[in-house]
Formats: sequence, structure tokens, C-alpha cells
Amino acid sequence: MRDVSIIGIGQTPVGEHWNRSLRHLAYDAIAAAMQDAGIERADALYVGNMLSGEISGQSHLGPLIADFAGLRGIEAVKIEGACAGGAAAVRIGYLAVASGLQDIVICAGVEKMTDEVGSRLTSALAQAADADHETVHGISFVALNALLMRRYMYEYGVRHEDFAGFAINSHANAVGNPNAMFRRPITLEAFKRAGMVAAPINLLDSSPMADGAAAVILCPSEQAREFTDDAVRIAASAMATDSLSLHDRHDPLWLQAAQDSARRAYRQAGVGPADIDLFELHDAFTIMAALSLEATGFADRGRGWQLAANGDIRPDGRIPICTMGGLKARGHPVGATGVYQIVEAVQQLRGKAGDCQIPNVHLAMTQNIGGSGATIVTHILEGG
Amino acid sequence: MRDVSIIGIGQTPVGEHWNRSLRHLAYDAIAAAMQDAGIERADALYVGNMLSGEISGQSHLGPLIADFAGLRGIEAVKIEGACAGGAAAVRIGYLAVASGLQDIVICAGVEKMTDEVGSRLTSALAQAADADHETVHGISFVALNALLMRRYMYEYGVRHEDFAGFAINSHANAVGNPNAMFRRPITLEAFKRAGMVAAPINLLDSSPMADGAAAVILCPSEQAREFTDDAVRIAASAMATDSLSLHDRHDPLWLQAAQDSARRAYRQAGVGPADIDLFELHDAFTIMAALSLEATGFADRGRGWQLAANGDIRPDGRIPICTMGGLKARGHPVGATGVYQIVEAVQQLRGKAGDCQIPNVHLAMTQNIGGSGATIVTHILEGG
Repeated sequence: MRDVSIIGIGQTPVGEHWNRSLRHLAYDAIAAAMQDAGIERADALYVGNMLSGEISGQSHLGPLIADFAGLRGIEAVKIEGACAGGAAAVRIGYLAVASGLQDIVICAGVEKMTDEVGSRLTSALAQAADADHETVHGISFVALNALLMRRYMYEYGVRHEDFAGFAINSHANAVGNPNAMFRRPITLEAFKRAGMVAAPINLLDSSPMADGAAAVILCPSEQAREFTDDAVRIAASAMATDSLSLHDRHDPLWLQAAQDSARRAYRQAGVGPADIDLFELHDAFTIMAALSLEATGFADRGRGWQLAANGDIRPDGRIPICTMGGLKARGHPVGATGVYQIVEAVQQLRGKAGDCQIPNVHLAMTQNIGGSGATIVTHILEGG
Repeated sequence: MRDVSIIGIGQTPVGEHWNRSLRHLAYDAIAAAMQDAGIERADALYVGNMLSGEISGQSHLGPLIADFAGLRGIEAVKIEGACAGGAAAVRIGYLAVASGLQDIVICAGVEKMTDEVGSRLTSALAQAADADHETVHGISFVALNALLMRRYMYEYGVRHEDFAGFAINSHANAVGNPNAMFRRPITLEAFKRAGMVAAPINLLDSSPMADGAAAVILCPSEQAREFTDDAVRIAASAMATDSLSLHDRHDPLWLQAAQDSARRAYRQAGVGPADIDLFELHDAFTIMAALSLEATGFADRGRGWQLAANGDIRPDGRIPICTMGGLKARGHPVGATGVYQIVEAVQQLRGKAGDCQIPNVHLAMTQNIGGSGATIVTHILEGG
């Protein structure tokens, strides 16, 4: 296989883009990434997206977006892995370049959620769970995560407010990110009095639905220098899965696919958790942040919440997470989120993360989660 | 890159499977393919599907099907390219094995369409076209193809009944295929009096909506002999795209993506149309069969219909097509169709196509079309 690097990144602000359609958002991110890489053509496009059919009445995003981005004719296809579709698209692009069959590959994620509202959006998102054994009973996606959070609190004797540090950190970090949806800090008091969504998950445990698109350009590492001095090497790429249904898990409080994909990634990169300088994890809900830290080796079982409580996850902490605001405050356009995580990690590795910059970043890890842990894609990126 | 071969195939009968859910159908095909290859594990699963969200309320098929097939934990993700999603999934699997990153890969296609009916199914299928510029005006997917057929008849002075040979050939071939949906021959008279769907496309120009699943197992060619003496080599794999909207095409009667993907495939395999022994093409409508033959070099522009009229496409003709019944008579479970085509080509190359067997088959080509030609995936397979 060939070694693969990222030579360009692009993103739109995350928010409510009522004046931009799905294809416009994707175009904005792809055009920015192509300009960043200094390229005018590409060999292939892999698009992460979950809800274009349900919300925009549009399947078949591959050729649509390739054509609209001025790349008519190239290999182009949509990759769907619920909320992990973005990183899955990068994973597929990685395979394409590694194979030697494609040289310049665009991996994009795009989602337009705010055209839909209320119960229909809740219903569309619940398609990430098991339709025959979970959502058929009427449970929503938030409620499934609430079951996990309640169980965690019970098993480990943790209070709801012990999760506050995750939301507070993400919001504080988003202040410096011009593309973040919510750029204002929140307090512990605000967290404690936030409206309940599905007990014990309240509004400030939850990432917001949003529109947005992000893109990265991949090429063989040996060619990267032709395009940029700022290339970021993909030191590892791994995807793992677990049962879709929570009740089928051997241990619902253990993200097996996070552990499996992280282990593969650590092995491929030849590193361990102690070597990682920052971790863009999938804080769709605060409980997911805690579980992700545990399964990837940054905290012992049942102790992930402590990293939030003691400040380890802050920009100056032991393992900074969600350094540009995370899903919680940058926003969570589901099929695009995994690409945003990678774009942000590249910004950090390039030393161009502006007010969000973490000092001395050499290795960054990203982890994108689909469903309640059924698809997990982990990447380790290495700065130049 | 590594050379890639197919070491196992599986399929369900195509039809109305009201007693089998999406996951059951996929399981049936995957289990059959794994048994055929003599394997009990795999490294990755790529699933082609278009309509699981719209019809079954279920996204996130990768982990769902991996788990249900006894493969919990492996890399697994859904690939969506409208009606070309099946072959696109094989294409992605090909990249994964070629890269050296995965050894044993399952590529499956599954679709369950008959749980939905009438206008809602028509609406879901129309998502293959451009939502903002085509379907917004109320046009259905059949009607878009009808525009192409009418234009073809006008430009080239062809009568509707001149397309009959495509439908008659596919139905005649399906008689010998136990997995085909319609196993009875049709006559020219029946074709001429068939009910109109969207003029000039009538019922016997059209492939039927159906449920079904098919799967192939890929591995590096150098390892294939460990599993089977019947391995089929993937001599070429290529995907190309075109504009989603028909009105954006430079020439609506030319399937540019068919030409582009076929040219790449011919080049990769080092062959030309004259070397191909059979061609599993995408006869979703008879017009698509004619256009596909022209763009891939089997007929001059405007002359594709003549190959049906003069018998060249029949099992004993110059270029047999749809040898197991094609989309028209085997049936068209959209996201699975591309995998069915490859499974059938493997059956022929192994000399195990039963009553459908074509003599002296060494090279087979398959071509899977999404939308009205927006995504086209071409494979060339080589027998042992």
C-alpha cells in the first residue's frame, strides 16, 4: 500500500444555512479544499452523508456533487454510516489512494438538517438505530443515549453534573473557532438548569442539529510535497463496528468498536494513547465523550468523566479534546461531522488553528461515531 | 496494487419477499457466498443499497448486516449510488483488497422495495434524479427515461417495437434462471400490446421493482487458490459519473459515463469490445440497453437497437446480453442489481450457469447504471 497524506482542507461555517442547498454547501467546502491544495482536478470523490434522502428528497449525491463542483465524470459515490459517514468517506478515500488506483481524492461530508423540524427530523435520525428492534418501540436516538447515560451514572455512582466539564470545555473552545455554531461559553449553573431532552440528557449534554460541509484532499505522501509544505500524514485509519441494537451488546457501557478501531489505529501508527497530543472525539452527547475516552485508553472504565472534572481535557490539559468546539459547540451536521473533526485536526497540526491553537501538536487522533457506537472510525494524523 | 479475484458468490431469488426483512435477505446472500468460498470470517463488508431509509426506516446498514451475518466488529459501511450502488460496493471492495489493507472482503447488495407501493415508491425512486431541477417539477424516474426513448426514436427514426428484442431476449433467458422473478417468455405481440407506463415506455420495456440480495467475496488473486479452483479474476473495475440532470448533458442520447468507465475498463484489462464474450448490461428500460451497447462500443451511435432486432444479443449471438434474464426478467432490486450482474457473470465464467450457460465464456463484462446514466460502474471478469 501507498502512504497517504492530506494536502487540502475546506469547511463551511456550521449553522442554519437556509439560503444554501445541499449541493451549494458541499461545493463551498470542496472548492475551499481544492484551493487550499492548489488543485483544479481530482480523480475521485467520496461523500459522507446520512439524511439527504429523508430531508432533501435527494439520493445519488456522488455525481450531483462532483458535477456541481466542476468535476463531472470522475468516480463519485456516497458513503453512509449514520453519524460516522464523514470519517467513513475519508476511510474509503484512504483505501483508494493507498491502493494506487487513484491519486488525488476528495473526501467530503455534507448534511442539511434544518430544512426539517421536530418529529420528522427525530424520526429520520432514529434510522441510525435498529428499526425492527429499537425504534419500532418508539424510542428516539437521544433516548437511547439517555439509557446509556443513566446506566453509567448508576453503575459508577456518577452525578449528572459530573458530565458538565465536557460541555463547558467544548463551548469554551468554540469561542475561538469562526466556523463554530455556538461561540459563547457556558457555566456549570447553565448546564445544571438546562431543559431536559430525555432524562438524564439535557439540552447542554446534546450537540445541536445543523447544516454544514467539510472536505479534505488526499494524495500519496510521496507526491504531497508537490502541492504543499503543510501536508499532514494519515498515520492510521481504522473502522470497526458493533451491534446496532444496544440490547445486543455484551456490555452497553463499553464502546467495543471504539476500542477495536483505536487499537488498530495505534498499531498501524506505532503509538499509544500517551503519544496523542489532541483528540477530536465524538461528543454528540456528554456520555459519548466519557465512553470514548475510556474505550480508547485515555481513562479507566467508569473514569472517563473524571477527565472532564479535573481539567485534563482542556486545551492546557493532559489530553485536549474537542479543541475547536467539538460536536457540542461547533455543531453536528451528522454526515459531515467526521470530516470536520479531521479538518480541525489538520488545522491544529499545521499550527493554524488561530485562537484554538494547542501548542506542540504532532499527533492528533479523531474518532467519529455512528449510532450509539455501532460504527466507529478512528484516524491518527501526523504533522509535518 | 494487488490483483483481486472473486472466490465466492451468493444470491436470493428475486421477487416479493414479504416474509424476509432487509437483514434476512442480506444474510441469505452473504451466508451463501461465504459457504461458496468456504470461509467463516471476513475483514470488511461493503453494502450497496438505495432505499433502506425511505422504505424500511433503516439507515446504517453496514453494522446491522455485518452483525446479523455473524461478523460483528468488522469494517462495514453502506455505499449508495442509486441503482448503481451494488456495483459501486464491489468497486469499493476492490479498492480495499487492492490496497493491501483488507484481505477477505464481502461486497453485498440488498434492496427491499415491495413493502412500499404506488406513489411513495415512485417518489423514493425519483431520488435518483435531481431533486431541485427534475423531480421538483413532478417528473418520475420512468418519465425521465421515456424522454430519452422518445428522443432516440425521433433522432434515429426507430419504432417502439424495434426495442422489443431486448425484452424478449431477457425473458427468454430468465426461463433457465431459478433465481429470476419472471421465468416465462414473452412474444412480440405481448410487447406491442403491453400497458403504457410513461409513453413510449410500456410495461414490457420496464424492469420490475423487487426484493433481493446478492453477494460476492473478494480476496487477493495470489490467495484465491487457497479457497477455490473456481476463482474469477477482476480484470478491470471502473466507475464514472455524469450530470444527474438530463438537461445538463451535452448529448442526452450518449451515456458518457458508460463510455468513460468502459474505456477505463478496456484499458485496464487490455481488451476491447470484440474480446468480450458476454455483457450483463443494465436493461432497467429497453432504451438503456440500446444506449449502453452504443456507449461501450458494441454498436454505432443510433444502432444499438439493431443488435436486438438482428439477434446479436441472444445467447448464440455475437454479444450475448442479460444471459440470466437481465433487470427486465431476473428483476431489479435496485441497490442489489449490480451485485446480481457480477454473480451471474461469475456463474457463466465458472460454466455453472445451468440452462442459461453460454459456451466458451472467458471474459465477461458487467455494467451497472444509476439514475439515467449519472453513475456507471463497469467490471470485466476473467474466468480461470
